[in-house]
Amino acid sequence: MTTTVGAPESAHHADLDLGPAQSLSCRECGHRTPLAAEFACTECFGPLEVAYDFGSVRREDIEAGPKSIWRYRRLLPVPSDVDVYPNTEPGFTRLIRADRLAAALGVRRLWVKDDTGNPTHSFKDRVVAVALAAARQLGFTVLACPSTGNLANAVAAAAARAGWQSVVLIPSSLERAKVLTTAVYDGALIAVDGTYDDVNRLATELAAEHEDWAFVNVNVRPYYAEGSKTLGYEVAEQLGWRLPEQIVVPVASGSQLTKVDKAFRELGDLGLVEPTPYRVFGAQATGCSPVSAAYKANQDVVTPVRPNTIARSLAIGAPADGPYVLDSVRRTGGAVEDVTDEEVVEGIRLLARTEGVFAETAGGVTVATAKKLIEAGKIDPDAETVLLITGDGLKTLDAVQDEIGPKATVPPSTAAVREALGH
Amino acid sequence: MTTTVGAPESAHHADLDLGPAQSLSCRECGHRTPLAAEFACTECFGPLEVAYDFGSVRREDIEAGPKSIWRYRRLLPVPSDVDVYPNTEPGFTRLIRADRLAAALGVRRLWVKDDTGNPTHSFKDRVVAVALAAARQLGFTVLACPSTGNLANAVAAAAARAGWQSVVLIPSSLERAKVLTTAVYDGALIAVDGTYDDVNRLATELAAEHEDWAFVNVNVRPYYAEGSKTLGYEVAEQLGWRLPEQIVVPVASGSQLTKVDKAFRELGDLGLVEPTPYRVFGAQATGCSPVSAAYKANQDVVTPVRPNTIARSLAIGAPADGPYVLDSVRRTGGAVEDVTDEEVVEGIRLLARTEGVFAETAGGVTVATAKKLIEAGKIDPDAETVLLITGDGLKTLDAVQDEIGPKATVPPSTAAVREALGH
Repeated sequence: MTTTVGAPESAHHADLDLGPAQSLSCRECGHRTPLAAEFACTECFGPLEVAYDFGSVRREDIEAGPKSIWRYRRLLPVPSDVDVYPNTEPGFTRLIRADRLAAALGVRRLWVKDDTGNPTHSFKDRVVAVALAAARQLGFTVLACPSTGNLANAVAAAAARAGWQSVVLIPSSLERAKVLTTAVYDGALIAVDGTYDDVNRLATELAAEHEDWAFVNVNVRPYYAEGSKTLGYEVAEQLGWRLPEQIVVPVASGSQLTKVDKAFRELGDLGLVEPTPYRVFGAQATGCSPVSAAYKANQDVVTPVRPNTIARSLAIGAPADGPYVLDSVRRTGGAVEDVTDEEVVEGIRLLARTEGVFAETAGGVTVATAKKLIEAGKIDPDAETVLLITGDGLKTLDAVQDEIGPKATVPPSTAAVREALGH
Repeated sequence: MTTTVGAPESAHHADLDLGPAQSLSCRECGHRTPLAAEFACTECFGPLEVAYDFGSVRREDIEAGPKSIWRYRRLLPVPSDVDVYPNTEPGFTRLIRADRLAAALGVRRLWVKDDTGNPTHSFKDRVVAVALAAARQLGFTVLACPSTGNLANAVAAAAARAGWQSVVLIPSSLERAKVLTTAVYDGALIAVDGTYDDVNRLATELAAEHEDWAFVNVNVRPYYAEGSKTLGYEVAEQLGWRLPEQIVVPVASGSQLTKVDKAFRELGDLGLVEPTPYRVFGAQATGCSPVSAAYKANQDVVTPVRPNTIARSLAIGAPADGPYVLDSVRRTGGAVEDVTDEEVVEGIRLLARTEGVFAETAGGVTVATAKKLIEAGKIDPDAETVLLITGDGLKTLDAVQDEIGPKATVPPSTAAVREALGH
């Protein structure tokens, strides 16, 4: 028996086409249930995950595909004609060799996966695109989310492009810039008088009441989360179809880290890469570091915290996938570490001045955590490392505004410029 | 005899490798001069342009290249190993089929070239990358520019990534957000007490005094400008190696429009596409529309104006390539049109709500101008049209901030949300 939350009738049609996806599987008890708009196991209330039958997938098929996440459509819960429908075409962002950052950090071979090149400049475009494609198959007609930033942008833009209605719920205290970058897409942007927790609770209630609303991170979460696998697929393909030895991933809910790990294992299982060993590292801000705390205390449970950090896109105090992050990290021989807000800002600046990539605070967390792990000898400086930069500094200007500015203000004369430069 | 401004000694080395580039050619009198850091003809003071010997270039060679502008390196003034040097790897941005915008505008087949996906989110990354590659060959060691926005971001980021020094001159009155998005790359950002004209003049003086400074839009301008050709190449390749029938390009200095036109002609000449007819349209903001005014008055000369428009990235009152824009437009059977600031904002909003693309004010100019040209019957609604969206709305939030916002602010209850949505 399964209980369906916010799932329209058509979700149960026999012609449901979600590509290689076969069922939903409980990550706790393994119980299987048919593909539908569900997110919790009816046996044990554990989280549901998409289970697949991939069949045979070849590199050539992927390489011949579009230059977006849809080149991996045979590995995602989406129909094979997914790219026929208007969508934001996210993914296939740059993987850049970061020699100058490597030198600064004292490692030999370093890469930066720069996901700021996505349509709304964060990795959320990936997960939202997969959620929308699955939601269409499941019979939904409205795309919705509670959010304080990147997710709101991605949902509103994806819905606009697809011609869907969107409902985006934000706390009414949200900064004006983040409101504007969502409101411009002209969906139903609703400001809620309350905390982000209030907004989240409201989203779950609305999902239960509106059977045609797909809340990307609530009732279609199992599909949505799979979108993060594409970060792992791309890194491997862009490295020439091989796995990196080490990868550093920021941890908010923890979903992204576990999906990158999943992607690497799938590629090995499918014979698309040699299944070489890799180590996964998690990065948190000290002001919201429940997973790092659990890792350091050698615990399996993650104790919720009240977030207090400038890295707001990572500020999830009760991370749903925290225990699975611990599993991935421990299984692969990685670690979880956290850094102060001052280190976050220095991480943003270090990446910008060495590689010309301006990351949001979450990127600063990743760079600063990598630095700390290298200094502690936990990241091997002689092994190849990839850093995931998942969002754009243009959206978190407040984090750096007190730290940087012009070198000098001068009158319009060449002598004044020379003097300012110390020539 | 040629006079060299700001060109280091090594510029004259015999081993200068600028790929297919053969010489500089005056666009007015046709006088040829060797490749060097020059921008004005010594015979007639006309603007210099790169002249090539392409030899044979095949589609397969391009398609096998990197997913950046460097796939077209055999068509640019850069060495064949250009992608070996660390660079921002711009280009190969999305070309999206825009059916919802097409329906709103009443045309049959419309595409949006979305250049917001570039590393610093504008087309300037293209031209700066080409300028840097040429400057390296010409013996420069510092990358510089005067700018009020996108160019400053692109130069500072490109220099950081390449490990070059940068000198970016901005008016001291520039908005804090634009200062931050340049300062973060940690080059020499100098605020100048004066107008943008003062800053520009200062740049020309500094270029004459510092032989190792490449001012991208001054002493290496002929190379820099060629970078815009890649927009034309990409559109043609992404359409399946064919030319669109109509293209709308924003006009600031006018360089971009003339280079897109040049790219289309080159592709036809090289047999990479069938040389089918196309029409080029220029888009300006009414508050800075000297080229549109000249076009409408049927004049060949462009009378400078004092800019007053929210489309600041197009606010060049004395456009250097204005006469060549008129040539391109008239030769191809296109037109130049201008739109009010109110229409610019509506253009931004129309593109965002129909296609999920948030453009800066220049993009609003392009969309609104296309709308006006369609309504006037100058753009054929039955012919295929491409719109160039060259920059990102995140950088010009002030343009829309009084127009958009949440639909409603409600208490955290589902009933309140339903009421706000009129359910």
